[in-house]
Amino acid sequence: MKENLKQFYTYLEKMERLQNASSIINFDLMTVCPKNGYEYESETQNMLSTMIYDISKDDKYIELLCELNKEKDKLDIYQNRLIEKNFREYNNFKNVSSELYSEQLKSYSDSYSLWIEAREKNDYSIFAPALKKNVEITKKVLSLRPEFNGNYYDTLIDNFEEGFDKKDYDAFFYELKKHLIPLIKKVYSSPKKIRTDFLFRKVSISKQEEFSKYLMSLIGFDNDCGMLSTSVHPFTSTLARYDTRITTHYYEDNFISNMYSIIHEGGHAIFGQNEPQEIYDNHLQNSMTMAMHESVSRFYENRLGRSKEFIHFIYPKIMELFSEELGDVSEEELYLGINAVMKQPLRTEADELSYCLHIIIRYELEKEFVDTDNFDFSSLEKRWNSLYKEYLDIEPKNSVEGILQDVHWTDTYGYFPTYAIGNAYNAMYLEKMKKEIPVSELLKKGDFLTIKDWMKEHVFKKASLLPPKDWIRDIAGEDLNPKYFIEYLEEKYKEIYDL
Amino acid sequence: MKENLKQFYTYLEKMERLQNASSIINFDLMTVCPKNGYEYESETQNMLSTMIYDISKDDKYIELLCELNKEKDKLDIYQNRLIEKNFREYNNFKNVSSELYSEQLKSYSDSYSLWIEAREKNDYSIFAPALKKNVEITKKVLSLRPEFNGNYYDTLIDNFEEGFDKKDYDAFFYELKKHLIPLIKKVYSSPKKIRTDFLFRKVSISKQEEFSKYLMSLIGFDNDCGMLSTSVHPFTSTLARYDTRITTHYYEDNFISNMYSIIHEGGHAIFGQNEPQEIYDNHLQNSMTMAMHESVSRFYENRLGRSKEFIHFIYPKIMELFSEELGDVSEEELYLGINAVMKQPLRTEADELSYCLHIIIRYELEKEFVDTDNFDFSSLEKRWNSLYKEYLDIEPKNSVEGILQDVHWTDTYGYFPTYAIGNAYNAMYLEKMKKEIPVSELLKKGDFLTIKDWMKEHVFKKASLLPPKDWIRDIAGEDLNPKYFIEYLEEKYKEIYDL
Repeated sequence: MKENLKQFYTYLEKMERLQNASSIINFDLMTVCPKNGYEYESETQNMLSTMIYDISKDDKYIELLCELNKEKDKLDIYQNRLIEKNFREYNNFKNVSSELYSEQLKSYSDSYSLWIEAREKNDYSIFAPALKKNVEITKKVLSLRPEFNGNYYDTLIDNFEEGFDKKDYDAFFYELKKHLIPLIKKVYSSPKKIRTDFLFRKVSISKQEEFSKYLMSLIGFDNDCGMLSTSVHPFTSTLARYDTRITTHYYEDNFISNMYSIIHEGGHAIFGQNEPQEIYDNHLQNSMTMAMHESVSRFYENRLGRSKEFIHFIYPKIMELFSEELGDVSEEELYLGINAVMKQPLRTEADELSYCLHIIIRYELEKEFVDTDNFDFSSLEKRWNSLYKEYLDIEPKNSVEGILQDVHWTDTYGYFPTYAIGNAYNAMYLEKMKKEIPVSELLKKGDFLTIKDWMKEHVFKKASLLPPKDWIRDIAGEDLNPKYFIEYLEEKYKEIYDL
Repeated sequence: MKENLKQFYTYLEKMERLQNASSIINFDLMTVCPKNGYEYESETQNMLSTMIYDISKDDKYIELLCELNKEKDKLDIYQNRLIEKNFREYNNFKNVSSELYSEQLKSYSDSYSLWIEAREKNDYSIFAPALKKNVEITKKVLSLRPEFNGNYYDTLIDNFEEGFDKKDYDAFFYELKKHLIPLIKKVYSSPKKIRTDFLFRKVSISKQEEFSKYLMSLIGFDNDCGMLSTSVHPFTSTLARYDTRITTHYYEDNFISNMYSIIHEGGHAIFGQNEPQEIYDNHLQNSMTMAMHESVSRFYENRLGRSKEFIHFIYPKIMELFSEELGDVSEEELYLGINAVMKQPLRTEADELSYCLHIIIRYELEKEFVDTDNFDFSSLEKRWNSLYKEYLDIEPKNSVEGILQDVHWTDTYGYFPTYAIGNAYNAMYLEKMKKEIPVSELLKKGDFLTIKDWMKEHVFKKASLLPPKDWIRDIAGEDLNPKYFIEYLEEKYKEIYDL
């Protein structure tokens, strides 16, 4: 078996190398590739993806994997997890022909083009048939899994957050809705006026760049193992063991956008830069779920970055760097401003409180259109708008700020809910953290390193090793529970809006 | 044969794709890769190089190439040139075992490490044995060529500038020496003092960045097909048909260094961005020699960029951007300052006149140590210093500014002379150009587009198609002749130094 494992690792190393090349190219494409160079370079990236795909379909690779899977109980926990993970992946796709796979990729890219066109023309009806086709082909692919049990959306949920299903999510979102919808309505009717004018004052890019460097080093980003670049949409990419990079987008009239992009992506990067060596030695790197990853970036962005304590710490630095632009803003005004509920239709611009309601809407819609036979996709926009009215009291002015706002439905379904699960995870581990280290005090003096060390030991260490249910239980001592997140939001927003 | 050609092209396309990936990675490594990410990323690049090498050693690839080579006279001129070029490459290396090839690569990297160490310790004797070993292994590899005629340096010259040999170069450099050594001695003894103080005044990086953008667009760099980044040493890289990028290095106290890096690398890029489509269609892109490429970058940098006419055109822009820093500098002082002969030991910092003498020294030394049996490498530094004293009246203070200044001898030999050949080429085509378009007038009004169009039609069009001797004859109507370059330097420097 040792020999099998050794041979199997050779395949993984080859795939990791090709993935490294592909990630470097992707980073280049997203940050600096010139306009006319984009097409050829994307094709090169596609070639590398095909090479990785071909290895995963190689007879010898599959033979080794199946052999190892039979005896996986004799392996150590890392090896066991690796084989389990790779076998599941193989098993899920073994009945999908390369023709069907190509058809699926084509459906994705067609629907992306149509989504772009629909946005340009502000007309959902252009996108609707592509969405329908995409969902159909997704379901066809799911139905080919040997263990497929007839529940499409359950399977999609499990894809992104292993071990979870609709029942778990329904219970979770039920609690969220029950508390957050009444809370946001109260916020709306609060007479309290929060100053936000200063958030949109002009701040030069070069000053924002300086601020970015300061923030990155403050929160513990390792510049020897990563760097900062710019891209249309901020993102984080772990290219290799010692190379996790982040990007941001500078807007002259919205310096807050960059500030929280840096802290959010910086949080992702700190996770990427601090996975343990054993995880890499066992080829398990980046095996954590998206919700685990988002839990950390949102922890840095919201729980730390938007806290009163952090604003207290950062206020003098902001006054030093931006005295010209923000000299008339008090510490209290700054804190309230960055937490103001804006009542606007875009998820990506939402405050912490509204954010989860945006996600609930997408969750409910996805469940409907994936699990309803012969779903009428032409009716989806109406349904979208009515849920926005009901939960958030928002009426999108058009499709672009409504149903066409997110790119996600051009390929995947079941991904949106993980954004909310991530918030609940971090509320759970923050409860635990507070019992062990004085988080408020640390934030007030800007000591992020102690926080990072705790995260490293408790949150990062087993993220790529354990399935999410085991992972959160290991950290917090209990199963996923929305309670802590809800309590936090209620307390925070009641104070902010004098409720 | 058509079928063979088609199959052969499939291999070339695969190699081009892998080369594209490798070039993107190389660009990343040289511009943004974080310190600790460098090692893994370099290994990924090595893997891609090995994949390209493996294709070139593939039996089927070689069979197709040999078949096509037998019938190459039936092919069109592009196809013929392609097969000839690839067959020569294959033939030159077919007797080199992969062990010997690895040994050569190891010898290169060992000598690079020892060169670094020698520089750190300012001690040539550390590098000497590595240089000796490198030259020996290079000669061993050359001796395995089926057509090897016993002349090592001739073969190396032909490697870089196909069709040339020692006899050609000896005649060429003889003329250069005969005229330029007396000329530079006269310059040294001229009583004329040229102002250079302003060249080293502090200019902010952001102003230099703005100036770079202006210069790039002025000379005709296409921003849709390329971009500008920064790296330790400026370079140009053609990643793909529509993607040629340049880099620069900003020094706050030497804005001229960036100005001429931009024009030099911009010249390379304009060449890269303007090769004809047929060259790409026939897989001949970037088949030009290094001397051809350098001829163009030096044409932009020196013949255009350091001309009186260009300084006249650019002077108002410089006064506008750098009024604070250079307000007291007249147009005449600027022109003289950027052309001043500095009498310093570093090739890369040299003025146009000294430059060729640096190259002559390296040419003469290479000839000696490559073609002398049992050459005594420990004596090389003494020889270096004596030639510097004799030709340039310079005594290097130490090895770092003397024999250890260039990295080139850690791998290749026969490359240095092409820097001088390039200068002679561009002097030849400028003579021709002047007869057809009013170059001085165009420069005075900053019309680089007309110049670019002429270059496209006459200089770029056949560069990847013709061997250099045919190419320069096709452009200038005569064989390589140092006369025009020498006349230009004599005229220019006699005027500058009132000789």
